Amino acid sequence: MPELRRDPVAGRWVIIASERAKRPDDFAGELAPTPRNLPCAFCAGNESMTPQEIMAVRSGGAWKVRVVANKFPALMVEGDLSKRGDGMYDLMNGVGAHEVIIESPRHEVSITSLNDGDVRDVLWLYKQRLLDLRNDYRLVYGLVFKNVKDKAGASMEHTHSQLIATPIVPLQVEQEIRRCSEYFDYRGRCLLCDMVMQEMQSGARMVMDSPNFIAFEPFAARFPFETHLMPKRHMSHFEATDDALLPELARVLRTSIAKIEAALNQPPYNYLIHTSPLNVRSLDHYHWHFEIIPRITRVAGFEWGSGFYINTVPPEQAAAFLREVRA
Amino acid sequence: MPELRRDPVAGRWVIIASERAKRPDDFAGELAPTPRNLPCAFCAGNESMTPQEIMAVRSGGAWKVRVVANKFPALMVEGDLSKRGDGMYDLMNGVGAHEVIIESPRHEVSITSLNDGDVRDVLWLYKQRLLDLRNDYRLVYGLVFKNVKDKAGASMEHTHSQLIATPIVPLQVEQEIRRCSEYFDYRGRCLLCDMVMQEMQSGARMVMDSPNFIAFEPFAARFPFETHLMPKRHMSHFEATDDALLPELARVLRTSIAKIEAALNQPPYNYLIHTSPLNVRSLDHYHWHFEIIPRITRVAGFEWGSGFYINTVPPEQAAAFLREVRA
Repeated sequence: MPELRRDPVAGRWVIIASERAKRPDDFAGELAPTPRNLPCAFCAGNESMTPQEIMAVRSGGAWKVRVVANKFPALMVEGDLSKRGDGMYDLMNGVGAHEVIIESPRHEVSITSLNDGDVRDVLWLYKQRLLDLRNDYRLVYGLVFKNVKDKAGASMEHTHSQLIATPIVPLQVEQEIRRCSEYFDYRGRCLLCDMVMQEMQSGARMVMDSPNFIAFEPFAARFPFETHLMPKRHMSHFEATDDALLPELARVLRTSIAKIEAALNQPPYNYLIHTSPLNVRSLDHYHWHFEIIPRITRVAGFEWGSGFYINTVPPEQAAAFLREVRA
Repeated sequence: MPELRRDPVAGRWVIIASERAKRPDDFAGELAPTPRNLPCAFCAGNESMTPQEIMAVRSGGAWKVRVVANKFPALMVEGDLSKRGDGMYDLMNGVGAHEVIIESPRHEVSITSLNDGDVRDVLWLYKQRLLDLRNDYRLVYGLVFKNVKDKAGASMEHTHSQLIATPIVPLQVEQEIRRCSEYFDYRGRCLLCDMVMQEMQSGARMVMDSPNFIAFEPFAARFPFETHLMPKRHMSHFEATDDALLPELARVLRTSIAKIEAALNQPPYNYLIHTSPLNVRSLDHYHWHFEIIPRITRVAGFEWGSGFYINTVPPEQAAAFLREVRA
């Protein structure tokens, strides 16, 4: 059973998951490349190579998008959530869900090779999984994320994303929610709604402006071409997004990524959804959003140890470039 | 002039330093290797290739350790600190210091190739630089760090470290200090002093126990073989360390790194010092420490976006291994 441990100084939780060390590429003096000569477990026809299917979108009997349990889960879905102390330290059992969303039956390596309708199905499944996991009272947060290419942490080439649901709120999200709550107390408005307004008025950092969503380079972007995407109207939970909005969201997400891929020559990247905790109904002060992070620069000790980043490309320049690029 | 911008949601400051983009390896679709065929600017004899010397330790006329301005500074030491707003955003001029500590006149690629006395001189220069920068009233924090090998963000092979002094306290340090302050309010003791006590009593995560310092694997280590090093006696500021303790600290630091190098076959790594802000005299609740972070695993979107890490090697296992390894 993995363990969740909290660092008392930094406040962050860490999964100490010794079971995963069995993956040969997880731990070595050098980063091992992912073997490419094995049959792909995510391709249609190889379903028996994955753990059990949790949910899928089907069309005429064949699956289009498929959610399965992670074969090397960081957290275990069975078991009690036993919280305890060890002197000054806090820990609990590593209870949680770790799922993989296989985004296509074909061996595509980028989500942008899918059409907008396929991407809509992927987003719809994110939503369904989060709605389902809300029923598990041990879990308080669902983090949806995507790793593309080795350098961004992907161990499979076939386009996919992941969902980890945890019995704690991750530190970075907790801090964002706290800061947004302070802002709300002071101003009576959602910080992220105000940000949408200012970005639309300024336009300098906008990448895409669609009726219900914007994609933009954040004012204090940590990384060159870091791109955020959020609904214009206030919405605390991703899973509360109306199904009618998903096709538009799919188009904005897919196009934003395609622009980044075109601008940076198919870079490794991550995206993730910051949303509100599973165990609260709705919040006036927090607003879900996507963060898309191209991994084209090295992160050095300075950044790691300080949370203080150096970005060599002003977000206004990156935005101007992305607005123009064809995708 | 670079700009310091604050992300209103996350609270973190980012240096938007467009000047640095001129370095060809700073920005490219693929990470470019550092050229190795040019003469090394850090070697004795090539002093004219570096910006002006700020300070040095000399012996018989020749320098042993040398501090110079960074040729590609992230922040500029000249200029006023003009703080301003842009709608809901906060920013200020990128005023600060960015220095390089060249640790040897010879082309050594690891600090462990130096002897303990040389490492003592490096630490003594860290101290002198921090003491000197305290006199600049624009600056509130001095971050000393080291990047080793490309994968950890080094752009020079020759053993060196860096110091960035900033007009803000980096987010991660600010949060640590706040949490330690809450702990002090509640318990009347320094959290890190309590941690030293518990680690010494338990012993399970200890790597080195020296009269005045311990090196250990933290309870909630983010990374395999992450190692922290701190004074046993309470001390808020690194630069307040008595010169008489520096030889012992040099030995513990050098040996800890040598153990990690032996265990992991010369991995890329970072270290950095977390210390108290330059503009406060001394704090009862915060305690300086080194964080040594081997960069042997990929950091994926999950970690980036959540501040929630998966570590596949329990710190107790790593500590047992490091205690035994010869160095």
